[in-house]
Amino acid sequence: MLTYDLNKRGSIPLYDYLYQCIKQDIIQGKLQAGERLPSKRTLARHLSVGVITVANAYAQLLTEGYVEAKEKKGYFVRSIGDYRVKKELPLPQLQEPEEKEFFVDFKANRISLQNFPIATWNRLMREMLSLQNEALLKTVPYNGLYELRKAIADYLATNRAMAVQPSQIIIGAGTEYLYGRMMQMFGRETTFAIEDPGYKRLGAISASFGNPWKYIPIDNSGMEVEALEASGAQIVHLSPANHFPTGIVMPIKRRLELFAWVNRKAGRYIIEDDYDSEFRYTGRFIPPLYAQDTRNKVIYMNTFSKSLVPSLRISYMVLPPQLLQRYEETMSFYSCTVSSFEQYTLASFIAKGYFERHVNRMKKYYREQRALILQALKQSPLSRISHIKERNAGTHFLLKVDTVLSEAEVKQAALAADMSIACFSDYSSQPADRSGCTLVINYAGIARDKLAQVMTRLAAIFPECN
Amino acid sequence: MLTYDLNKRGSIPLYDYLYQCIKQDIIQGKLQAGERLPSKRTLARHLSVGVITVANAYAQLLTEGYVEAKEKKGYFVRSIGDYRVKKELPLPQLQEPEEKEFFVDFKANRISLQNFPIATWNRLMREMLSLQNEALLKTVPYNGLYELRKAIADYLATNRAMAVQPSQIIIGAGTEYLYGRMMQMFGRETTFAIEDPGYKRLGAISASFGNPWKYIPIDNSGMEVEALEASGAQIVHLSPANHFPTGIVMPIKRRLELFAWVNRKAGRYIIEDDYDSEFRYTGRFIPPLYAQDTRNKVIYMNTFSKSLVPSLRISYMVLPPQLLQRYEETMSFYSCTVSSFEQYTLASFIAKGYFERHVNRMKKYYREQRALILQALKQSPLSRISHIKERNAGTHFLLKVDTVLSEAEVKQAALAADMSIACFSDYSSQPADRSGCTLVINYAGIARDKLAQVMTRLAAIFPECN
Repeated sequence: MLTYDLNKRGSIPLYDYLYQCIKQDIIQGKLQAGERLPSKRTLARHLSVGVITVANAYAQLLTEGYVEAKEKKGYFVRSIGDYRVKKELPLPQLQEPEEKEFFVDFKANRISLQNFPIATWNRLMREMLSLQNEALLKTVPYNGLYELRKAIADYLATNRAMAVQPSQIIIGAGTEYLYGRMMQMFGRETTFAIEDPGYKRLGAISASFGNPWKYIPIDNSGMEVEALEASGAQIVHLSPANHFPTGIVMPIKRRLELFAWVNRKAGRYIIEDDYDSEFRYTGRFIPPLYAQDTRNKVIYMNTFSKSLVPSLRISYMVLPPQLLQRYEETMSFYSCTVSSFEQYTLASFIAKGYFERHVNRMKKYYREQRALILQALKQSPLSRISHIKERNAGTHFLLKVDTVLSEAEVKQAALAADMSIACFSDYSSQPADRSGCTLVINYAGIARDKLAQVMTRLAAIFPECN
Repeated sequence: MLTYDLNKRGSIPLYDYLYQCIKQDIIQGKLQAGERLPSKRTLARHLSVGVITVANAYAQLLTEGYVEAKEKKGYFVRSIGDYRVKKELPLPQLQEPEEKEFFVDFKANRISLQNFPIATWNRLMREMLSLQNEALLKTVPYNGLYELRKAIADYLATNRAMAVQPSQIIIGAGTEYLYGRMMQMFGRETTFAIEDPGYKRLGAISASFGNPWKYIPIDNSGMEVEALEASGAQIVHLSPANHFPTGIVMPIKRRLELFAWVNRKAGRYIIEDDYDSEFRYTGRFIPPLYAQDTRNKVIYMNTFSKSLVPSLRISYMVLPPQLLQRYEETMSFYSCTVSSFEQYTLASFIAKGYFERHVNRMKKYYREQRALILQALKQSPLSRISHIKERNAGTHFLLKVDTVLSEAEVKQAALAADMSIACFSDYSSQPADRSGCTLVINYAGIARDKLAQVMTRLAAIFPECN
């Protein structure tokens, strides 16, 4: 008869402990295949527990296939094969990588959360939770909530002169995610072109999706269209309003050349990544290619991670009408990747004008921040050996430094001084220029009271400043 | 001299209107390439506006490349090429698809939001917003917030007897998303195997990633391991705790056969999708393959969309230690797809025990719901011609109906009676059985006061019940 010391069970339920004991006996061969278990009543009496306890233990053993029930005959141990319990490859103790906090991180594009209207956001979220109770039960459509797509379409009409209908918009968790969907929709025979220098990560994404891709050089007007034509690419990704990292605005002449390219052959499209277009410090917005295009060949992408708060992962793209059916047929089986809580909250945040106000406030904040860092730079010895390449936009600038140090040496020296910094060549397929180096200075998140100190420390790594 | 009626500008800024007027003149050829614009001062006097207004308009034209500035000579119109303004392909008026509301939707796996602890969630979110102010500035690591990974690891240890370290966990926006990362990490030469019947969508995802994939038949114990071996697949996706849609629990014997398969050749792995394992109405949890595996060959996946609320898009996977480096090297350039707001909130929701309480509450709710629908079924004439295939788990059951109608005819008749329903063959690669039909009844979201009515209406579509 099965005999177990049920007092050893600790805090786990009686039936659970009994199930585990019998299971162990089966695994270790103490109970052999074909053997009959005692009847529930007999075992219950033997162990001084209720019949229900034994019944529950047997039921669990039955569910997991350790025993079988034969009608009117009782429970029998099943043949299970070779059960190894001991881990042959025990888990190694893994280290969580420690996050390094630098004195200053010129790479981090942190925006200031102090400027994020948390109270408003939270109030809208509470409103949403009480108003949208029924709606939150529903499955979000693959392309995102109508309310958010409508709010974005209206915003683009007012702020970008773009004629967009909500059903053209696809919501996704990041532009990378949406870029992936484009690669899959156009297929692995389609070659993508990306800017060089530019977002190298797009090359990695293309490679991971198995799409051929080409770097296309840029000149002072942005991507060189002749090189694009020669590349054989069908789809080109670019940021005409604010090229990264140079800040180049693509002039109208080059834009028209690009349209000539896209219209020359069927199946060509432009992906316009307008990610950083909100933050221009002078003048009006740069018209998107989407608005200038006459043949619906532009796929427009943008994100709220940059303009609102990086903690949110909400991006969108606007598809030309002739691609909508293709997208639905090939990609709509993917569920929408953004939580509907945040979609409803953002929809209301945009529709009620808070987003526009937030962007204006951030523009003002970044304009001040930019003025302060430029002033700190001017007052540092670094100003004697450097000049700024900047276009009054975005939250970074390029700083060309005349130094004997190579870019690799500058990065190393910066690290030694507890600063993290990227150089121009990090975003280029070409090796760094031998003569001097160009730094990429992201200034959005640098604490204002540290700006002078930051510039002093940065200057100190250059022998020319000492 | 340029002359425009500035009173026509409506509400747009003066400089903006002036810029648009001059731009139109350049586009339409009224101002020709090489032509010199009047000096700012001259034009300002002529139009009775400030010099700043003209300067801003000229600056915008300069930025967009319509004019160029020659030092000490002024602004000149640039040659831009052929600018078409009129849309050659005007946007068609697109219809937003109307969302059909059925009398009852047996397909929709809606969970009851009335049971979601909105007040607690909202309080935790407020706490998070005030406590994590600094942390929210930071970029979320590619694998997700440490706090959430830690909370999940602890939960799995307590509730699934799984030894997991936080650094083994990857957070993503949905299991589909994580499944895609697995396809990319293992590469396009790797064949994936999926259950038949099962989640057909995984086939579509595999195809869109270009990975070969095979359907593997199941028997009463779940996936047939001989067929799996014969398929040549390296990675198999399955739900051993609750196969969809049959609810089969894979017995220990089949599990050991599966381990024998995975250990037979290097490079083989099991993806265990435990998505529906929280909702068992009798006994304890089914041990995950992950916990039974002795050679770290199981990738464990689960989601909070099912167990918490579908509006959240948060899933995770647990990678075996030997895959971590490979994942980091090949996939860590992808940013985390889940908002850090929701990651912090969920982390705190789990760590403070609310998640466990919520699951228990939902288990009770679904158990009652299940009892009520089974009772309603018993009282309907449908009970005479049908029997239930169900395993005391999940939020759906199969209903085998002895009827002259084919599955296609049943679905059609249901639609005509304003009901949406899926049949077994919808999840299978095989055509529906000629004899009778098997319905998939998702009952989680059906209003309780409608249950009797629902069953009456469902019975009415079968001639055998009339």
